[in-house]
Amino acid sequence: MDFRYGKKVEKWDVFQVEVNGAEEGNPFTDYTICGTFKGKNETIEVEGFYDGNGVYKIRFMPSFEGTYSFEISGNAISEKKSGCFEVTAPSEDNHGPVRVVNTYHFMYEDGTAYYPLGTTCYVWNLQSDKMIEETLETLRESAFNKIRFCVFPKHYDYNLGEPRSYPYEGTPMDSSVLNKENFGEYTGKTEGNNWNLKRFHVEHFQQIEKCILALQDIGIEADLIIMHPYDRWGFSCMEPDEDELYWKYVISRFSAYRNIWWSLANEYDLFEHKAVSDWERYAKIICDYDPYNHLRSIHNCIPFYDYHRPWITHCSIQRQDLYKTSEFVNEWRVRYKKPVVLDEIAYEGNIQHGWGNISGTEMLRRFWEAVCRGGYPGHGETFMNSSNILWWSHGGKLYGESHKRFAFLSNIWKETPGNGLAPYDKCAWDEVCAVPEDSSENGYYLYYYSFMQPSFREFYFDNETEYEAEVIDTWDMTINKAGVYRGKFKIYLPGKPYMAIRIMKIRHDSQTFTQ
Amino acid sequence: MDFRYGKKVEKWDVFQVEVNGAEEGNPFTDYTICGTFKGKNETIEVEGFYDGNGVYKIRFMPSFEGTYSFEISGNAISEKKSGCFEVTAPSEDNHGPVRVVNTYHFMYEDGTAYYPLGTTCYVWNLQSDKMIEETLETLRESAFNKIRFCVFPKHYDYNLGEPRSYPYEGTPMDSSVLNKENFGEYTGKTEGNNWNLKRFHVEHFQQIEKCILALQDIGIEADLIIMHPYDRWGFSCMEPDEDELYWKYVISRFSAYRNIWWSLANEYDLFEHKAVSDWERYAKIICDYDPYNHLRSIHNCIPFYDYHRPWITHCSIQRQDLYKTSEFVNEWRVRYKKPVVLDEIAYEGNIQHGWGNISGTEMLRRFWEAVCRGGYPGHGETFMNSSNILWWSHGGKLYGESHKRFAFLSNIWKETPGNGLAPYDKCAWDEVCAVPEDSSENGYYLYYYSFMQPSFREFYFDNETEYEAEVIDTWDMTINKAGVYRGKFKIYLPGKPYMAIRIMKIRHDSQTFTQ
Repeated sequence: MDFRYGKKVEKWDVFQVEVNGAEEGNPFTDYTICGTFKGKNETIEVEGFYDGNGVYKIRFMPSFEGTYSFEISGNAISEKKSGCFEVTAPSEDNHGPVRVVNTYHFMYEDGTAYYPLGTTCYVWNLQSDKMIEETLETLRESAFNKIRFCVFPKHYDYNLGEPRSYPYEGTPMDSSVLNKENFGEYTGKTEGNNWNLKRFHVEHFQQIEKCILALQDIGIEADLIIMHPYDRWGFSCMEPDEDELYWKYVISRFSAYRNIWWSLANEYDLFEHKAVSDWERYAKIICDYDPYNHLRSIHNCIPFYDYHRPWITHCSIQRQDLYKTSEFVNEWRVRYKKPVVLDEIAYEGNIQHGWGNISGTEMLRRFWEAVCRGGYPGHGETFMNSSNILWWSHGGKLYGESHKRFAFLSNIWKETPGNGLAPYDKCAWDEVCAVPEDSSENGYYLYYYSFMQPSFREFYFDNETEYEAEVIDTWDMTINKAGVYRGKFKIYLPGKPYMAIRIMKIRHDSQTFTQ
Repeated sequence: MDFRYGKKVEKWDVFQVEVNGAEEGNPFTDYTICGTFKGKNETIEVEGFYDGNGVYKIRFMPSFEGTYSFEISGNAISEKKSGCFEVTAPSEDNHGPVRVVNTYHFMYEDGTAYYPLGTTCYVWNLQSDKMIEETLETLRESAFNKIRFCVFPKHYDYNLGEPRSYPYEGTPMDSSVLNKENFGEYTGKTEGNNWNLKRFHVEHFQQIEKCILALQDIGIEADLIIMHPYDRWGFSCMEPDEDELYWKYVISRFSAYRNIWWSLANEYDLFEHKAVSDWERYAKIICDYDPYNHLRSIHNCIPFYDYHRPWITHCSIQRQDLYKTSEFVNEWRVRYKKPVVLDEIAYEGNIQHGWGNISGTEMLRRFWEAVCRGGYPGHGETFMNSSNILWWSHGGKLYGESHKRFAFLSNIWKETPGNGLAPYDKCAWDEVCAVPEDSSENGYYLYYYSFMQPSFREFYFDNETEYEAEVIDTWDMTINKAGVYRGKFKIYLPGKPYMAIRIMKIRHDSQTFTQ
């Protein structure tokens, strides 16, 4: 027996068993390997996977502390293996997987607050080591705690080159035939690809695991896009048995990482060869084979997937209107009764496409609109530059302005009493206002004025309570005390856009909301 | 007989007959006076009106040149009067009334292009002479060619004082009882007003006529709001016979001015005491008594009036959504098949209300959005200042930024081939594009990128035609030549918001669209 992590493992870390097994024929399809992991509070069965060179791996994420036993079986090995290990308390930065709480919000499994603040770098993980390190450095200095990226390589504008590796054994089509003119014709199976879709190229998946762990180290959730339509290699239109093999391989390799979220697809509606029944089939595979119930969603281009589906844990929305984006969060909360994550509200940048050329001020405005309506906006950047390295696709450096203002926003999130914000249903037609989702946390109001530039606003809650007011400049990132009031009162503003006002009941037990 | 304008009058000017008549009793209700005006091409009957001091006036606007005869009759005078006069050719700046042409657009009756570019100063006409002169001076230097204002005085935020005159004989309530707290309670008839609603205060109407003529002198249409709900004097809730008397008086006094447009109401839906049947009744009075068919509409606060109604010549819209305003022009054109005038898309300013605090950039963006969708946006300003003089209510000076950019916009309108722009139905999802309404004027495209900031855009129309491209900065007001192209081509932009691209087919007869 061969423990990569020794006989001790932290709760929510990966306990991995490596065994040598059958190499004849096709080890990816011809043999089975699975593990049963048993502790006082749980018994979990997982599938293992073949990792090349005769090695099979079985991964497990324990959700409880204490002694576990395990048994590995399957026809890949000549005899069962068993053993036991200790699960220790999680270390300081290990809060477990993220879960849905309070209908519309998230929380780490240990109860630590988690307000998703995501970005997108579709194939940052398939770039050079140098570029990957640069991306990680950028992320480390950012306020992001979630990133969307793909397992499969991506073929799309500004990203027509070869990835660092391919997921299957075989050879890709000759990309020298590509040019701008016929770019649009590549939407799946094309001449010249020569893959064995039953044999995975394990280094590709090992590389993705390195990236998932690197993200985990800096507190970032890996919102993994399992399928996407930007394809010249045929991975978006494999046969059902090939798809099933892929899904199970992905799940057996990645599901033990606590920071994994499953995004079944990016722009599911752009796949020419897939129907809703296909996505439902993949969803069932995840539900059947991921024993940890990681968060699951699917992302649209134009029509929404039906986010009512019971397997979907949260909305993963691309806005449907050029002008109104985050402004629909209230409606989507009511419609779906799930967390509303806006995984694409356009990208800050200056490329030719309308989805990739909004300003930093507009991006930040969309963020605050979403936040004050009880939703979770997502970021991305598409600035043209001489090296053709765009954050949205490759990672690297950030060039925009909005991201610099997310830590400020995130702090305000964290100062909210309870867990999460909800739209205030009594606010006026010309303002957005958030209150704590938990209605017992009353007396906290976060008003946002968006593109409007009022010189003052008037307030009235009741005649008795004392309220403390603050004027927040969401762009310049200042919070100024604006006095203590009772009854009707007026708060003055500088008459410029992107301002907010926070009003908090004064708690005379000296428990105010800001520290 | 007593001609104010002598025996000659220009076509579309006012030919006025003044006669002395009965003064006993109530000359506003007890007597009739009317005129029949007869030329080679038209015979028009109009009602006259009492103008005080025993004088009755009958006004007529001739639509043809040549000799006219007239006859004045009615029981206000002891015997009929008759005479004749010559109608001469219009002088250079007299283009006649504005008419609807080409379904969605306007034109002066003489065929001169008219692209409405309106503003709103609700009661500029009821301010001091000095303030009125200042407003006229501002208008003279502006690109505006339409202004909305009221006959009745206005009671509303920032405008609680007494007007220079009242429309009826009598005395107003004591305005010293007003304060911010009970401001909202005044929505019509209130204690302390003592009006004779059957006797007009003629100086009030004479003052409005002076303003209408002063506007005419500087080429501005008077979009006269006949009723409005911002009222502490009871004028918004008179009895039906009082309303009828008022409507007929207004029509008989004002309809001979060629620059009059009838706006039945501002925010018709805010009148507590009026139903649609009332507005339809007023509309019928206008249709019956205005022989010149001046433009007619009615303005909403929230629900639209049914702009399908046959008496309505054009939509006079207040946007219904806080975020999307001009963006709906395409839909409204399809729905109503009439010119879409956006008489309120919010005001540039910084007051507390969301309808009155958008930035200059946002106002100009809404203008271009509307223009490139084949609509006609309207302006207004609500900047707070120490004197509490707000353009939207009082006139005076402009403090904003958008209005400085309207002459530039207007020039682009005027350079459009044909008369008026229509939305281009083949434009992409992430752009707005206008083409000439007249489809025979093909090969002219005005693309607008709104808040987006593309670094370039790609175009393809056909392989044969040569096109000239220009990059337009709508904010900085520059037009830069961007080359001549055929087939597929790419136009570079500076990657900032509020940019447009104009593409024009090169006409080898040297007839290009720009001079």
